[in-house]
Amino acid sequence: MLGEMLEAVRDTAPLIHCITNYVTINDCANILLACGASPVMADDISEVEEITALSRGLVLNLGTFSPQRVQAMLAAGKRANALGHPIILDPVGVGASSQRTRAALRLLSELRISAVRGNASEIKALALGGGDTCGVDEALCDRVSEDKLLQTAAFVKAFAQKTGAVIAVTGEIDVVADGQSAYCIRNGCAEMRTVTGTGCQLSALTGAFLAANPTEPLKAAAAAVCMMGLCGEIAYARIKPQDGNGTYRSYILDAVTRLTAERLDKEARYEMR
Amino acid sequence: MLGEMLEAVRDTAPLIHCITNYVTINDCANILLACGASPVMADDISEVEEITALSRGLVLNLGTFSPQRVQAMLAAGKRANALGHPIILDPVGVGASSQRTRAALRLLSELRISAVRGNASEIKALALGGGDTCGVDEALCDRVSEDKLLQTAAFVKAFAQKTGAVIAVTGEIDVVADGQSAYCIRNGCAEMRTVTGTGCQLSALTGAFLAANPTEPLKAAAAAVCMMGLCGEIAYARIKPQDGNGTYRSYILDAVTRLTAERLDKEARYEMR
Amino acid sequence: MLGEMLEAVRDTAPLIHCITNYVTINDCANILLACGASPVMADDISEVEEITALSRGLVLNLGTFSPQRVQAMLAAGKRANALGHPIILDPVGVGASSQRTRAALRLLSELRISAVRGNASEIKALALGGGDTCGVDEALCDRVSEDKLLQTAAFVKAFAQKTGAVIAVTGEIDVVADGQSAYCIRNGCAEMRTVTGTGCQLSALTGAFLAANPTEPLKAAAAAVCMMGLCGEIAYARIKPQDGNGTYRSYILDAVTRLTAERLDKEARYEMR
Repeated sequence: MLGEMLEAVRDTAPLIHCITNYVTINDCANILLACGASPVMADDISEVEEITALSRGLVLNLGTFSPQRVQAMLAAGKRANALGHPIILDPVGVGASSQRTRAALRLLSELRISAVRGNASEIKALALGGGDTCGVDEALCDRVSEDKLLQTAAFVKAFAQKTGAVIAVTGEIDVVADGQSAYCIRNGCAEMRTVTGTGCQLSALTGAFLAANPTEPLKAAAAAVCMMGLCGEIAYARIKPQDGNGTYRSYILDAVTRLTAERLDKEARYEMR
Repeated sequence: MLGEMLEAVRDTAPLIHCITNYVTINDCANILLACGASPVMADDISEVEEITALSRGLVLNLGTFSPQRVQAMLAAGKRANALGHPIILDPVGVGASSQRTRAALRLLSELRISAVRGNASEIKALALGGGDTCGVDEALCDRVSEDKLLQTAAFVKAFAQKTGAVIAVTGEIDVVADGQSAYCIRNGCAEMRTVTGTGCQLSALTGAFLAANPTEPLKAAAAAVCMMGLCGEIAYARIKPQDGNGTYRSYILDAVTRLTAERLDKEARYEMR
Repeated sequence: MLGEMLEAVRDTAPLIHCITNYVTINDCANILLACGASPVMADDISEVEEITALSRGLVLNLGTFSPQRVQAMLAAGKRANALGHPIILDPVGVGASSQRTRAALRLLSELRISAVRGNASEIKALALGGGDTCGVDEALCDRVSEDKLLQTAAFVKAFAQKTGAVIAVTGEIDVVADGQSAYCIRNGCAEMRTVTGTGCQLSALTGAFLAANPTEPLKAAAAAVCMMGLCGEIAYARIKPQDGNGTYRSYILDAVTRLTAERLDKEARYEMR
């Protein structure tokens, strides 16, 4: 059951090294603390290898891209690979600039990535190698919807097989797959998109789950995705007519702090494809 | 009416590119989402032109100044000018260091800026070209007060005429002017200054309003200033005796999320000078 | 009484220059506003000396370490020393990377530091000069506990004497000492560790207290430490079963905004050793 994955995070409190953007970095640190893990944010190339060596997982997030940060990601990533730590890649904005696309492809080719977490258009841009995104395979639409679900699951599985990474595509329905199986997840609510960084936070959470459950990356990533969505629902249920994204942001972190393994087991909504 | 300006933001959901400081960047992203726009934060010179080309407005904020970020601002700004996107300049801390003053003056001279938003001392430093600020024209005091309002409005209009930009000076009374007319705005409350970044957030909001209302920059900027002040009032009305700037910060974003065009029309308090 | 120290902050509203990490920089700015001081965040070497000259205190925080930021710290620090402004050093993560350790030792040797604020393992790493931390003097354990308190106080006093700085070691029990006396402080609660950056915030607060009370650095630092702990308690008392670290983060800032000198006097819990 997915709740075990959360219990492992709380039992082992893994230290997670994030090289991430400075828009949502505070929320990423707080969600790691909220779920029971511990954050360390360090992105200078002179120290990232040492910091990674003290940690148990590495999260690479391409928001507020810079070439220097990508160099630091490669250095930390190689050390993480040597130590057998899971690496999570969040290709924020891939496809929006050629530099980001190149950087994401380079990270994917030079490092052994355990999981990639992005929205449909980011994963599509990555899968298509940064090629022209017009007129491409419609299997992966920018929105993952009911009628395209089977096609999407097949696409995500194929990309997972090609890369050797668990791929998590989040949206209206989330699809989390390795080369063999796909979780199609129906937790979450549309209002989560009104808070900046819920995607970045999920990537950080995925880092904690994979670090605490190294032998089951698919199940761990699926548990993180269900947890984030469920916490978005729980937080939204508290919202009153005067509340907006300021309060909602805090309530999401609150829900992550309080979610129990039992509730995650009971309220995770997914099917396997 | 000013409410139409907000409706246009919600109807068109413009993507706003911010090159901004890392103190308040999360709040700037969240206020853009709260008002119905969409944020993209990118400041590396290797990608800012591409990011700007995908966006509909550009916000340049000089907080946490660095020469590299100013170079990125110039590159993005030239692209934005070529594409006809509005540029908003927030000259944070101009006058506090000679580098910032020089940078602000350079941005103002090399780019076609649509609107400048700052407090009285920043706008004064900019208008006076970074010269000695002792003994200067008292027309623009560091506080815009009732007895100096006419003089201030005249000063701001003259600076707007000289620069070709809408100038928004915020304080006890806000003055938003182009070369011909000035809105004198009495929304807002003093407690907003106890939350870091309400000025930066207003500049981001102004970017959304100008991008959604490109033919009416003065009215759009005035609407953004009224909205920010009004949201500060609405949020403050929710504050209880135990609450301080932590809760107030969230409530301001909440108010922006919830404000309707009707309420903005009804509660905007301004006169033209 | 310690409340006088807070009154001096509120009466003089000192401008505090922070060169700090970008994880918790927003919280550091907001806690300075909450306590009645004023923040200015600037870390580019081209302007830090001018910014420091406008300020009344300087806070140097080694989180998100970079060599460039350390150079800026040295430049700002030398100016602050020349002007007689207090400097607070927060050696975040010292011992975690050799670069951070070297940087902290360099700042401590090249600048006249007024106060150092860290957790036990950071202060230990600093005191031991970055040497091997295995098997070292057990006087300063990673947790400051009741049975080791006398030993810890002696260790902290000795390090304070050696450096000439007030040393604040925070943990279960906080020890704040100069070469002669130590405050052993029992405010605070364990849940504060679930919010990222409460340590960084305390260091910023300490900057405000020392700037407003320049002739009594020990008492000022002790007052800041008591205040932070007490505000953590007050905020925690508001937490309901659904609340977690999102809401707790806001409530801590709220408590700092509202704390009176009288309450600080009444509820500060410390003894001298």
